[in-house]
Amino acid sequence: MITTSVCEMTGIKYPLLQGGMAHISDAALAAAVSNAGGLGIISAASGNIAQIEAEIDKARTLTDKPFGVNVMLMGQNVDEIAALLAKKKVAAVTTGAGNPERYIPMWKEAGITVIPVVPSASLAKLCARGGADAIIAEGGESGGHVGDLTTMALVPQVCDAVDIPVIAAGGIADGRGVAAAFMLGAVGVQMGTRFLTAKECNISRAYKDKVLAAKDTSTIVTGKRLGHPVRSIKTAFSRAYAKAEYTQISNDDLENMAVGTLRAAVVDGDEKKGCFLAGQIAGMVNREQTAAEIIGEVFAEAENILNGAEKWVK
Amino acid sequence: MITTSVCEMTGIKYPLLQGGMAHISDAALAAAVSNAGGLGIISAASGNIAQIEAEIDKARTLTDKPFGVNVMLMGQNVDEIAALLAKKKVAAVTTGAGNPERYIPMWKEAGITVIPVVPSASLAKLCARGGADAIIAEGGESGGHVGDLTTMALVPQVCDAVDIPVIAAGGIADGRGVAAAFMLGAVGVQMGTRFLTAKECNISRAYKDKVLAAKDTSTIVTGKRLGHPVRSIKTAFSRAYAKAEYTQISNDDLENMAVGTLRAAVVDGDEKKGCFLAGQIAGMVNREQTAAEIIGEVFAEAENILNGAEKWVK
Repeated sequence: MITTSVCEMTGIKYPLLQGGMAHISDAALAAAVSNAGGLGIISAASGNIAQIEAEIDKARTLTDKPFGVNVMLMGQNVDEIAALLAKKKVAAVTTGAGNPERYIPMWKEAGITVIPVVPSASLAKLCARGGADAIIAEGGESGGHVGDLTTMALVPQVCDAVDIPVIAAGGIADGRGVAAAFMLGAVGVQMGTRFLTAKECNISRAYKDKVLAAKDTSTIVTGKRLGHPVRSIKTAFSRAYAKAEYTQISNDDLENMAVGTLRAAVVDGDEKKGCFLAGQIAGMVNREQTAAEIIGEVFAEAENILNGAEKWVK
Repeated sequence: MITTSVCEMTGIKYPLLQGGMAHISDAALAAAVSNAGGLGIISAASGNIAQIEAEIDKARTLTDKPFGVNVMLMGQNVDEIAALLAKKKVAAVTTGAGNPERYIPMWKEAGITVIPVVPSASLAKLCARGGADAIIAEGGESGGHVGDLTTMALVPQVCDAVDIPVIAAGGIADGRGVAAAFMLGAVGVQMGTRFLTAKECNISRAYKDKVLAAKDTSTIVTGKRLGHPVRSIKTAFSRAYAKAEYTQISNDDLENMAVGTLRAAVVDGDEKKGCFLAGQIAGMVNREQTAAEIIGEVFAEAENILNGAEKWVK
């Protein structure tokens, strides 16, 4: 068994969080991950309070294990979402795109474990000072919204910057990645892309097929010119978008090109209009399994590798 | 002692290569690294045959240990450089920017160990098929010319793609990085940025000071629009260049903006015109040490971490 302070802190068996993926991470996926011993995460990216509450209630019918909710701090209705999560007393909250400082007292009072996702050591420090319980250091090889720093460079620098537990995210999809994260100083991992092909993940067939077919070089970052880069699988759409960024197209038109494209991928599986978010590690994801199979396999691999690490030293 | 097939293959004590850094990796640095038990690498990026031969000869007066030469396959005079290296029977050649296949028979005949640097699993496969002895999988967090894939995502995918030894590069500057690389499946590492502040590294004072002062977020990638992105420390110049890429400036003018900027950094320490290449891990490089101190420290840390890896499994 691999067990760390992240397990104690959140009441889970494996030190593994499922990434909060907008329009993807619903009650079904989160409950499956939590039932399998990880920390499932529901995305609150819709900004629809009634819908988020319904997902939380639904997850509670599907699991009696702890699960969390992910809040994009630059999204819509953040104050209302924050209050809802306190009211619902979810086990944990992960946050993206900023410092959740102003919500932390309210969340802590509700018994919520607060774990911000950060792209830099300086934001990690601010979040720790603000009362965060742990930090997710997420490298830019991850899918969806990405920062500049990579997991290999970011994790040790965040570990040096804060005294609270650090969870590594970005580029992790098997036991090798978990073991590497531990060597860098992390005491837990977050995985997103590998759960895209989980049997309990409710995304379109076309989306799953794209992840299964992906090679190492199959993803691309777009949106850098607008200051909010996202990583997705290369398609005619994403390549065209990347090219457009170097043209005289206005920022508004560029912004409009992206509207509705995630929904088109997740719900409709629209190969032409869809933006299929995924991390660079998609190239290693080539089977559909249950969340329990994924987590069991990843940690069995990690145990083997960590148990064998000594062999390199003679 | 950490010793792997990379040590046997190249006749070195530690499975560590020094990155071939254009206009930086000279005989002095390479010999210092080789004397310390790593594999020092002279850069052949100047394209000047007489000068490259002189550096090789000089290194031989400074060390009796094996060292290598790095060849940029898209550089100048590559055929002549390749022939020179065969004539000089250097211990090893590392190559960048392509598949060195056509030179491999000549190099192997001269007893040279051939280790291409690759940014993808597909190029790794081609190089292995072409007769390479090992592969350096280099993540885009490294300094200088960079690929898209990060070390965390690239190394395991390259390991799955080839049967020859894999060396990890990009984002590695201490024992944590070395231990993580081994968990990902690598059997050696290449470090560049950490050697920028080696006492034996002959770069300008301003360059060293910029590396020493760097934080995790201090680097930036420019040149993506032209198809040959490079990572350097953020300066007024590199920020202006990155902005210019999104303007209507012609590709020729953009290309011209970069001419002479590496030399201005390395030789002149020109803060205004210089392009100070460095990796994301520069934020962790904050001391000037000899190459021997660096290598000794990094491997002592890595040994400790690998010996303690088992503790995570209960």
